[in-house]
Amino acid sequence: MSAARMQVLSSRNVRLLSRGRNEVFAGRSGAQRPGGDPRTRSLTCPPLSSSSSPGRALSSLSATRRGLPKEKMSENGIMSRAKVLTIDTMNPTVKKVEYAVRGPIVQRAVELERELSEGMKKPFAEVIKANIGDAHAMGQQPITFFRQVLALCSYPELLSDSTFPEDAKSRACRILQSCGGNSMGSYSASQGIDSVRQDVARYIERRDGGVACDPDNIYLTTGASDGIVTMLKLLVCGEGTTRTGVMIPIPQYPLYSAALAELGAVQINYFLNEEKCWSLDITELQRAVNEARQYCNPRALCIINPGNPTGQVQSRQCIEDVIRFAAKERLFLMADEVYQDNVYAEGLELASFHSTSKCYMGDLRFSLSLCFVLCGFRGGYMEIINMDDEVKDQLTKLLSVRLCPPVPGQALMDLVVNPPQPGEPSYGSFIKERTATLSALAEKAKLTEQVLNTVQGISCNPVQGAMYSFPRITIPEKAVKEATETGQQPDMFYCMKMLEETGICLVPGSGFGQKDGTYHFRMTILPPTDKLKILLNKVKEFHQRFTQQYS
Amino acid sequence: MSAARMQVLSSRNVRLLSRGRNEVFAGRSGAQRPGGDPRTRSLTCPPLSSSSSPGRALSSLSATRRGLPKEKMSENGIMSRAKVLTIDTMNPTVKKVEYAVRGPIVQRAVELERELSEGMKKPFAEVIKANIGDAHAMGQQPITFFRQVLALCSYPELLSDSTFPEDAKSRACRILQSCGGNSMGSYSASQGIDSVRQDVARYIERRDGGVACDPDNIYLTTGASDGIVTMLKLLVCGEGTTRTGVMIPIPQYPLYSAALAELGAVQINYFLNEEKCWSLDITELQRAVNEARQYCNPRALCIINPGNPTGQVQSRQCIEDVIRFAAKERLFLMADEVYQDNVYAEGLELASFHSTSKCYMGDLRFSLSLCFVLCGFRGGYMEIINMDDEVKDQLTKLLSVRLCPPVPGQALMDLVVNPPQPGEPSYGSFIKERTATLSALAEKAKLTEQVLNTVQGISCNPVQGAMYSFPRITIPEKAVKEATETGQQPDMFYCMKMLEETGICLVPGSGFGQKDGTYHFRMTILPPTDKLKILLNKVKEFHQRFTQQYS
Repeated sequence: MSAARMQVLSSRNVRLLSRGRNEVFAGRSGAQRPGGDPRTRSLTCPPLSSSSSPGRALSSLSATRRGLPKEKMSENGIMSRAKVLTIDTMNPTVKKVEYAVRGPIVQRAVELERELSEGMKKPFAEVIKANIGDAHAMGQQPITFFRQVLALCSYPELLSDSTFPEDAKSRACRILQSCGGNSMGSYSASQGIDSVRQDVARYIERRDGGVACDPDNIYLTTGASDGIVTMLKLLVCGEGTTRTGVMIPIPQYPLYSAALAELGAVQINYFLNEEKCWSLDITELQRAVNEARQYCNPRALCIINPGNPTGQVQSRQCIEDVIRFAAKERLFLMADEVYQDNVYAEGLELASFHSTSKCYMGDLRFSLSLCFVLCGFRGGYMEIINMDDEVKDQLTKLLSVRLCPPVPGQALMDLVVNPPQPGEPSYGSFIKERTATLSALAEKAKLTEQVLNTVQGISCNPVQGAMYSFPRITIPEKAVKEATETGQQPDMFYCMKMLEETGICLVPGSGFGQKDGTYHFRMTILPPTDKLKILLNKVKEFHQRFTQQYS
Repeated sequence: MSAARMQVLSSRNVRLLSRGRNEVFAGRSGAQRPGGDPRTRSLTCPPLSSSSSPGRALSSLSATRRGLPKEKMSENGIMSRAKVLTIDTMNPTVKKVEYAVRGPIVQRAVELERELSEGMKKPFAEVIKANIGDAHAMGQQPITFFRQVLALCSYPELLSDSTFPEDAKSRACRILQSCGGNSMGSYSASQGIDSVRQDVARYIERRDGGVACDPDNIYLTTGASDGIVTMLKLLVCGEGTTRTGVMIPIPQYPLYSAALAELGAVQINYFLNEEKCWSLDITELQRAVNEARQYCNPRALCIINPGNPTGQVQSRQCIEDVIRFAAKERLFLMADEVYQDNVYAEGLELASFHSTSKCYMGDLRFSLSLCFVLCGFRGGYMEIINMDDEVKDQLTKLLSVRLCPPVPGQALMDLVVNPPQPGEPSYGSFIKERTATLSALAEKAKLTEQVLNTVQGISCNPVQGAMYSFPRITIPEKAVKEATETGQQPDMFYCMKMLEETGICLVPGSGFGQKDGTYHFRMTILPPTDKLKILLNKVKEFHQRFTQQYS
């Protein structure tokens, strides 16, 4: 009955629509067509009746609509002026958001791929996207066990399929039993599936040599971004000189700067020391916080370790110093798991994030297989430590508004923290796949560093922990001048040229932040070894060509 | 090599940790233990060395830490006072966020489930969660075809399995081909997978009788919440009386009020007319916007249709009037698909959302099978129409910061808009499953309305379009008084009592907003018919008992 009624309504609307279009359309001049002031139009808009033929009228109008070239519309500005929501009337904080990892250079790369597919001639046969740590897109094979369990969870009828190993089946059953109605299609608790949070807690305890971890402090998230943005949201308050300030490393992963811009928080930069392999020293933290106290209220310190884009791993001494510093300066610490075991000793408040694109401290090999699985599944978790109970309730409430993180990502997270164990049927193949993946990666990290350091004008720190290299490049004065004249950052100018000439897509260092007058690019080490070799040689040749051209 | 280095670091940290704990622990008084001022503690914290036994020390500290009862800590306030982030120093807008659908009553329901599982005696054998539209959790079976394709995408080795139908396989291949590296584990484009957005556009065109739909206007989202919050974010600006105001229906789905609170936008209420089956009339919209113009800048009008929690479907006349009104008052319209075909005629700006828990206008039967699959997968899309090009670029940029929506949810969305076609092997079973699901639902909608209307003091409008009923309940003066004295909303008091006495979890109307002096609850119609009958009778008996008790 309700179904019936809606059917009727909808077919009515279609007739109404066509009729309405004809009349309104007829009553308008070309210039007004899609862009005219809605107010006048709605006034001249005659009562809509229910006759006449949909098809023709509709297509004709939509055709007309599509007919107007975008340029024209923005040129004469009619559209923008007529609109409620324009670049001038939108949320100003959103405009401040920048995200280089998917910025103009990536958009151009996508265009180039289209142009290639349309048969356009280019100096290269394919676009190589080395801008983002997307392992599967680079041809990396997924871990069979993970995928088997996911398939079993998606379609439980497969549980009776004898070709699936028993441990994959029992794992799938356990996950499904913790889902409402034994289905991944159900909402989970807002904080995440209980059994998954328990497994994450056990994983952290194993990793930390028995330090107790309370599953109530584990929040499953939609990737890391979700958790990081939520934590920052809790911290932001005040106005003017009391506005919350958040310390982030430079270079940084631009999610942080983007989130701070959107929240209208004050970004406090502290610089990593490139000469000392991107290490972090306390005197620099102290300088940054002291200066910041003059114009904002520093409340949080973000640490990215292993570094992204810089790929370093901070020393033990550094870790101790950072924690003492945060406690002394009364800063909420937002950090990777690496710090948490040091933290209880300080009673410091901390939120610790795991993401699908970051690494687990203390087990690089394992962590990388993680990165290799989760990107598209948007899995992640954060652990909070020493958080005020009332604030924790607010956090849970805030997360509940988005109902729950994607359940397939939660299931996958469970497998990642709880992989096949010795003696289980899938253990052998799991270890084999993992080892293959990781020896290849270790090799590629080394290869990248070596090749880039043979190029004059490029110097590359070792890739210690992440899947990126962030080499420093020398850009000739003439090139800097030409870039500045065209209103571009010199390293954007450099990367854009490289993209056009070689099809290689990198992210300019300016997208992550860097010391003034220095230039870098971020490049993933993920392409298959043979492809990576070609890529590195193309970069080498391009850099030499570029240097000659502008010197 | 890098792996090796991190291994060492981590084991060092564990030793460091244990040692650090012992000394700090020894050097502290009980009161200070977990809560003392980090500054003093970090100053008394001795240099950490690398000896002594982890296990004991750690467990002893964490034991002590866990030992302190929460009440104690918040009572004496030591913890809170010591902390950087407290309820008094956190983001005030977050505190204003309310989300009844997962509020205190649901938390109590979870506790009750635990107590039951621990063998505690209750007047009921199980908790029935009728608070949220979570079909699978209510025992609804998933659509086989959807799950088969997901399994194939998760574990492509199954493509050679002869037990899977050919159309499921070809569908899986098409999805995988559009994923980076042919893997669901890859990031997708921020806006969503191209081929999925194309299928969504084709679906909209079919539904709207051929109106052209540009895939560039389709954004795949993480559930509807993601899209709605993002759109509101773009619209919010100004301060004081120029602050952006957004019109929402009362009763409303609390995602809207929660998002507005978080963004610090002004919520403008317009009331649906319960006497006229929750219809919406323009004079009320006009009243609301006129009053609002005195204290804010109304910029957007949100329409929820079919209604949630109210389940009505607005009339054709209403739809026309709303669009004219929005155009006349220059409001950005945020609406369900139902409106879009009327909109081109007005050149109005609109964002149209589909979610995993809402219904497709014009095809209730189909839409419900949608709700029945996607909850946990967090799939969704929005279509934007007539949006300013520069703003659209900002929208795309903003979405790119969270990289991409979960790929499994995108894949599922593709199947939902593009189900098996006549002649394809899975068509028969798909239609059979869908029909079974929907005839059951139509039956349950009717049953709910009928039974509830037999109860004196309960009146229930017909469930026309969503999966909820929102009956009005009479609460005796004495009960209202007792509730007010205990600082509760009367309908919260009512629902909480029902939960404790019957195990039935409903959401009080106050969580959605209602006319002063009226009381309601929201109840899903999703439980299996036999269970629903029991549930409705328990509600009936409870209401009669409650009324007697308090009259």
